[in-house]
Amino acid sequence: MKVVCLISGGMDSVVAFHDALRTHEVVGALSFDYGSKHNHREIPFARWQTALTTVPHQVIDLGFIGHLFDSDLLKSGGAIPEGHYEEVTMKSTVVPFRNGIFLAIAAGYAESVGAQGLVIAAHAGDHAIYPDCRETFMAPMAAAIAQGTYAGIQVLRPFIDWRKEEIVARGLQLKVDFAQTWSCYQGGEIHCGRCGTCVERREAFWIAGLPDPTLYEDNGPLPPKP
Amino acid sequence: MKVVCLISGGMDSVVAFHDALRTHEVVGALSFDYGSKHNHREIPFARWQTALTTVPHQVIDLGFIGHLFDSDLLKSGGAIPEGHYEEVTMKSTVVPFRNGIFLAIAAGYAESVGAQGLVIAAHAGDHAIYPDCRETFMAPMAAAIAQGTYAGIQVLRPFIDWRKEEIVARGLQLKVDFAQTWSCYQGGEIHCGRCGTCVERREAFWIAGLPDPTLYEDNGPLPPKP
Repeated sequence: MKVVCLISGGMDSVVAFHDALRTHEVVGALSFDYGSKHNHREIPFARWQTALTTVPHQVIDLGFIGHLFDSDLLKSGGAIPEGHYEEVTMKSTVVPFRNGIFLAIAAGYAESVGAQGLVIAAHAGDHAIYPDCRETFMAPMAAAIAQGTYAGIQVLRPFIDWRKEEIVARGLQLKVDFAQTWSCYQGGEIHCGRCGTCVERREAFWIAGLPDPTLYEDNGPLPPKP
Repeated sequence: MKVVCLISGGMDSVVAFHDALRTHEVVGALSFDYGSKHNHREIPFARWQTALTTVPHQVIDLGFIGHLFDSDLLKSGGAIPEGHYEEVTMKSTVVPFRNGIFLAIAAGYAESVGAQGLVIAAHAGDHAIYPDCRETFMAPMAAAIAQGTYAGIQVLRPFIDWRKEEIVARGLQLKVDFAQTWSCYQGGEIHCGRCGTCVERREAFWIAGLPDPTLYEDNGPLPPKP
């Protein structure tokens, strides 16, 4: 199937991209610049990963989100909380309906370039605090996209029931270079090691029993799961 | 209910906006600049209509659509076809998944400003060629937005079963100044009178038996419905 991949430059979407290259004909890859504190760190890795292939990569400017939306993930928002990714405190980093917006834009782009599917890397660990990562959202969104496009575009969500450590293991199988991915919400020079998404990243390698190539500011003990 | 209105500056969304002012607490109005041939004509009317009120009006820049999507409605596309709005030739003016993109962005904005609902003016006449105006799209999209937001945001579609002449009649009741609205896809100095949306506009006033304040380049006979 001809597909368009959503690729942020994070671990999950990078693995999903390389996985899709084996299963589908990938005709486009989209990243979104929406004014987050870490877009300038993750998008270059999306570019690096797609540049390993001949797939056209587009960076979509959604600067209005940074100006009009309310989230601590944005440069316009407050400080990024530290702790476990599934903590309720991490809710302040949710960008309202972000996946809905990304999928809708990808659907229009896919229809324009003649694709029949989209690939999004939402996974089980996202479900706790992100309503737009759960299957209860994904199923009607997929139906809306199938009904609202002439091509009846399908939303493929290969990792929707996977744990992050399973995605890491799949990435290692595919020889994904995880040093060329970015997770940290702080968007500093190197990964902070303390924010929710750094903790999730460290934990995934640790649980998978696989080497973590990431340089962290803080390699201290991981906080317990909530 | 606190609602955000989608307002293009066309007749339908302008009437829906003034209708919503009577029924809801309108906390925001959104227009989208997506590189169409007529955005520069219609958005000033959206601004004019919202400026009659204290509702904040935001124009969202979606310039990437003009560069990456395929549609004759866009400045990057081919000529606008003439004839009836419901003709199959008008399909070339469909911007893929446009309403899905607009609704998704409006959902994120609504969650950010504390609204519980969105108002979109899709109507029965849109159904023929626009898959993302039909209730088969709207129902799952509404479910995705309800499930994908903390507030469980509702998509209100007051005109979904209305014919355009009924919207005109409702606008007259509400004393809407239709001279301060724009339909023509050509985006010229005045309405062309020949493109699908001009034909639909002229026909709506004619069927409703109400005066049409619009200045058209061509006032010749209306083409028959397909």
